[in-house]
Formats: sequence, C-alpha cells, structure tokens
Amino acid sequence: MRRALDLAARGPAVDPNPRVGCVLLDRDGRTLGEGFHQGAGSPHAEVAALLDAGCGPAAGPRPSGPVTRAGMPRLPAGATAVVTLEPCNHTGRTGPCAEALLDAGIARVVIAQSDPTPLASGGAERLRAARVEVVTGLLESEATVLNRWFTASARLGRPVVTLKLASTLDGRVAAADGTSQWITGGPARLDVHRQRATAGAIVVGTGTALADDPQLTVRLPAAEPAAPAVESDPAPDAATAPTPRQPLRVVVGTRELPASARMFDDAAETISLRTHDPAEVLRLLSDRGIHHVWLEGGPTLAAAFLRAGLVDRLVHYLAPALLGAGPSLVGDLGIGSIDSIDRWHLEDVTHLGDDLRLTLVPAAGPTPATPATPATPEGA
Amino acid sequence: MRRALDLAARGPAVDPNPRVGCVLLDRDGRTLGEGFHQGAGSPHAEVAALLDAGCGPAAGPRPSGPVTRAGMPRLPAGATAVVTLEPCNHTGRTGPCAEALLDAGIARVVIAQSDPTPLASGGAERLRAARVEVVTGLLESEATVLNRWFTASARLGRPVVTLKLASTLDGRVAAADGTSQWITGGPARLDVHRQRATAGAIVVGTGTALADDPQLTVRLPAAEPAAPAVESDPAPDAATAPTPRQPLRVVVGTRELPASARMFDDAAETISLRTHDPAEVLRLLSDRGIHHVWLEGGPTLAAAFLRAGLVDRLVHYLAPALLGAGPSLVGDLGIGSIDSIDRWHLEDVTHLGDDLRLTLVPAAGPTPATPATPATPEGA
Repeated sequence: MRRALDLAARGPAVDPNPRVGCVLLDRDGRTLGEGFHQGAGSPHAEVAALLDAGCGPAAGPRPSGPVTRAGMPRLPAGATAVVTLEPCNHTGRTGPCAEALLDAGIARVVIAQSDPTPLASGGAERLRAARVEVVTGLLESEATVLNRWFTASARLGRPVVTLKLASTLDGRVAAADGTSQWITGGPARLDVHRQRATAGAIVVGTGTALADDPQLTVRLPAAEPAAPAVESDPAPDAATAPTPRQPLRVVVGTRELPASARMFDDAAETISLRTHDPAEVLRLLSDRGIHHVWLEGGPTLAAAFLRAGLVDRLVHYLAPALLGAGPSLVGDLGIGSIDSIDRWHLEDVTHLGDDLRLTLVPAAGPTPATPATPATPEGA
Repeated sequence: MRRALDLAARGPAVDPNPRVGCVLLDRDGRTLGEGFHQGAGSPHAEVAALLDAGCGPAAGPRPSGPVTRAGMPRLPAGATAVVTLEPCNHTGRTGPCAEALLDAGIARVVIAQSDPTPLASGGAERLRAARVEVVTGLLESEATVLNRWFTASARLGRPVVTLKLASTLDGRVAAADGTSQWITGGPARLDVHRQRATAGAIVVGTGTALADDPQLTVRLPAAEPAAPAVESDPAPDAATAPTPRQPLRVVVGTRELPASARMFDDAAETISLRTHDPAEVLRLLSDRGIHHVWLEGGPTLAAAFLRAGLVDRLVHYLAPALLGAGPSLVGDLGIGSIDSIDRWHLEDVTHLGDDLRLTLVPAAGPTPATPATPATPEGA
C-alpha cells in the first residue's frame, strides 16, 4: 500500500478527480503491474495497472490463454489489487474499475480509503457480490490526506471554502488612504502563493478586483515546484510532478471590470459570476469539478460567505502592526451582540517571517450544501 | 550568589525598591550572615546581613574588640559580601550601603547587577576607592531578571508601560451594541489578573471606567499566591511571600466618575489624574515609585500612549472569533498611509485555552522620557 500511495502522489494535486495509485500482485506477492491516475480523462489507476501488467490494449497480439471481454489476457489466478481508493462503480469518461478488475480475474482487492462520493461508490460491494475478497481501511488516513479537498468536498456536497485574511493586530486590511502594500512580509506573501496552488479556484469580489487589480495567479520562485504546501498534502515527487497548473480565476459580483484588468490576462482562465449568492457560486464551481475554493475577499464577499455559513477554514495572516484606521477584515456579519459572536477553533499557528499564520475551522463544524447531498458513510 | 538571589526573591516583587539579597562570608567561605530587602523603608539587604552577622544595633552589649562608627563589632578580617545588586551610594530613608560595608571592615564585594539608577549608583566606585576588591557581573542576567521592571524603568527614566489589548480576529473589543463580556475565555482572563499583579499601577481612561465599571483589582484563585506570572519574574518562595499587594488604580481623563464606581471601593487605592497627556501620567506615577504600568485602555487612551511612543510592550489577547462590527482595538493613531504603519516585533505567542496571547515590543525600540534622564552605563 505504501508503494500504491507513492504512485498516487505522482498524480495532479489539483484535479476534478482524486489521486489514486494501484499495484497488482500475483499470489506470491510479486508485482504484476503498477499504475496511477494522471488526471481527468486519462485511465484510472486500476486500468493503468492492468495495462502495465499486460492486460490492456497495448499488450500485443491476441493471446492464446483465457481472455478478458476486451480480448486481453486475464491476470494469473489468485492475483491481488492494492489500491489507495475504492475502485469506482460508475461509468464516466472511463468505465467502472470494479468491472475491469473482475473482468481481469482479480481474486482479492485491498483498499485504503472508501470512495466518499455518492456517484462512484459501491465498488467494494460490487466486488464482494462477485465473491472477490475485499479488505478496506489499510493506511486509510494517509490515503485520505492525499485527497484532502476531494474527500472533504465529497462529504459536504460542495467545494471546501478557505477564506484568506490578512490584517494588522487591529484588524485593518489597508491604511486610511486605501494603501495596503504591504501589510505582511515576503514569507507570508509567498505562503499565499503556495496555498493558492492547492485550490481549484481563486475567488474575489468585483470590489477587490477594481481596488487592487490583482493578477490572482500562483507565482512561486523558479526553484520551487508548484507543489501544495499544506503539510498534510504531501508534495509530489519533484521528478514526476506535473506542470504547474493555474487555478481558475473567478470574480463574483455585478460591477463591470475593465478589459485591461490583470485578471483577464493570458496567465490563467478567468470567469465572471454575476451573482451575490455564495451558494450559487459554489454550485457553479462544483459543476466545474472544483473541490477547493481559495476566497481572497474583499470584506464584503467574505462577509457574504461567512453569513451563509459557507466558510470551512480561515487562513489569517496577522502582521504585528497597528494602523488605527482603515477598512476592516470583514464586513457586517449581522452580529448585534456578544452572544451571537462567530467563534472559530484555532487549528494551527505558524510563524512566517515577522508575521503569524493562523488556521481556524468553525467551532460549530462545517455547513453542507442545501439541500444536503447524502454522503457515503465513512468506512462504508 | 545563588543563595543571595534566592534571598532576594523573598522580597516583594512590586515595590518602589528593587529586590536584593546579600550573603556575608568569612575568608574561608563560611557564612557570617544573610539578609534581603523587604521593601521600601526597611533595611537594605547589606544592612540586614550585617545585623544578621552580629554587626548591627541588635548585637548586644558594646564589644571589646574593633568597633564600627555605630559602636558595633566589625567583621572578621578578609570578609566578603556577595550581593545581587551594586550597594547603593546614596542616603534615602536608610544610609548608603557602600559606607556601611566599609565601616564594617569588608575586604571584598562580589556584585551581580550594577545599579541602573543615576541616583544610587557609584557604590562599586566608592568601594574600590577605599581599596576594597570589587568583582561585578556574576550571574548578572539572573539578577536583572529578578528586577525586570525596576531595571527597565531606571534605564528609560520613566515607568515601563505594558498596553493590554483583547480583541477578536477582526480587531473588535466589543459587539455593535457595546457588549464585550466575554470575548476571551477564562484562562485568558485569569492571565490578565496574573499580569496585573506584576504592575505597580493599573491605568484606564474615564471612557472605559464609565462604560465597563471595572474593579481593576488582582483577583486570583485562593490556592494561588499573588505571585508574578511573567516567566522571567520568579515567584517568591510561597512560605515567605509577602501579603498580596493590590496595584494602584489610576483613572486618566477629565470626565466625572460616579462615587459609586467599583474603582472607588476599598479593595485598593485609587487616584484620578485629570490630564490627557501620557507623559504627565508617567511623571506622576514615577514620583510614586511605580516602575511598571499596566494600561488597560480603552481605545482612546491606548491611542494617546501609542502616538506619544510611550508603550513598551503589547500584551494582546486574541480570541478566535469574528464580530464584523463594534468598536476597534485602538483609536486613531494619525496614520494615513501604509508607509507610516506602526510595526511591532512579536516576542512570544502563548495558547491560553482557546485564545492566543501575543507579546510584542516596538520594532524600533522603546522611547525614553523627555528630557532623557541620563542612565548609568551598563556594567559601570
């Protein structure tokens, strides 16, 4: 399974599909084939491993022994598939992996993480029904971490939303005259780019787009691969890391932006969502296969997401400085009295140069999409 | 010297005078006497040790051997005084200790910390001039820590000012309707009481006194001695700790307070300073022998001290919560643009229950009183 996890980590960290690795073993534990998923539209890890084992269309002339429905050689009797995520039971751009494994004559399947999506789950059940021995839960937490946002998003039925905040000790995001470059130092700003790289989309309101004209791309030092910096999101092997992929740039609101805005340059794709409804924004981004949204503000859009209960994580860059005046971190939250205070749980405190990065999750737990999409129970 | 430091720590942590310990040794290193300073108006440590060695007024009938000017027996030849602070060279309510040691026939004086005050220093010089061997700097940092605020205040020529702040992540000190109990949790509020206990005075503006009606006393659990909680300020030996002493309560400003205000109860002494000038406040408190001021706000008074450059330390209790509206941490600092941002250096981050305590010092260093009182150079 460790090998399968290493293979999985070679896949793209940000993709509509999860990262999956698969190792096929004969009854004596010798490797027959290996594979991992290289991103939406390419073969799933199980199929890639079957191809590697000589059971795929590239295996050469029609064999003389037992063949699959596709006319390929079957696996030797007693073969095991070790796979980091439950084989899918769903036909998308590729066929269901559970069927492919059955067709190839698999005897045993060892799974780390159960499929968290209502759509593709049921693979283990399908295999068991066909009298295949199925073992689940081996190194499950490692596998889950590998697909942190995919998993969390599947459970919520909507993309996970991280709200990025940056302020002084007195909660100011800019000085009285609107100047804000720079409140935080170089290490904190570099960390923002690393965190952006873990997201499928970077979202801002039209107010921020007009005021700051941000480019909203991931910009990292040349020496550094665009690997996710979240500690729990292991960096892919540098040698096989995919080409840095820019998150989708999203501007939310009804105000017009000039065509010359930096967000509209060629560095990445940009969409405008002419709405003020955070739930609608998330539905539209979910439809595009986005699991993790990095929300960069400004205060008005941040407040709209917070009021809707649609922020799952705060990443607050806190500069040890005071301004005494200037715009505040978040707009009106509709909180009139201390009894309604919006409490968070401090998950992590990290020093970044002179600044602090605070990571927080809601004290009351996350809010699923409405109507709630039923999630597969954990370990099912 | 370790024994002398232990003795010194038995003195009151908050007092106009520093904590000092003294051990007298004969030429073979045997202890002749020990003493420590028990607070303003009581004998200095050196005199207490001389009395303990039988060289004081309590030593009984007039001796037959060599006597001091006061008619007391002198120390045996070759005696050493080990003292945590340079013996004073100044007549206050007690005479100069350097003279008392000379008079008793001391041969050698070992000193940890040089006297930082312009008024009382010069003792080492006086002793050397009288051909006494003087060694300085032994365990100097430990001795300095013992009198942290006394030392810092002597160097600045004014009391050290710690500004206490408590806010949400968005820098709010209360909700939109003014309610603020409680933004931070129990452990943070207990810590405030521990920190108050290290101060000679607790200062608030009339606005805060009117809005919150605080009692401004040190209130600690019964089991806990009112010992300073600052890590670098060692707690006195519980058995000999002095009775908890309430800091002076100070209200600054020209608005009238009702006689029924809790600040005017019998729990501690209270003074009203009818001024808006932070420098004047510090001069008046300095005259009362106060070395450390714990400034509890509100935002207007905090801003006045910050604008005057008269805050030496921020202790910021940060609650992981958002309010979106409500009064801000500090009032207008006169900062118009990001170039004038008031930067601090983060010295410590401590978790207190769900909250964080940030301790910060000015990035540019402290501001001495104007006109600056010349401080004795370190190690002089």
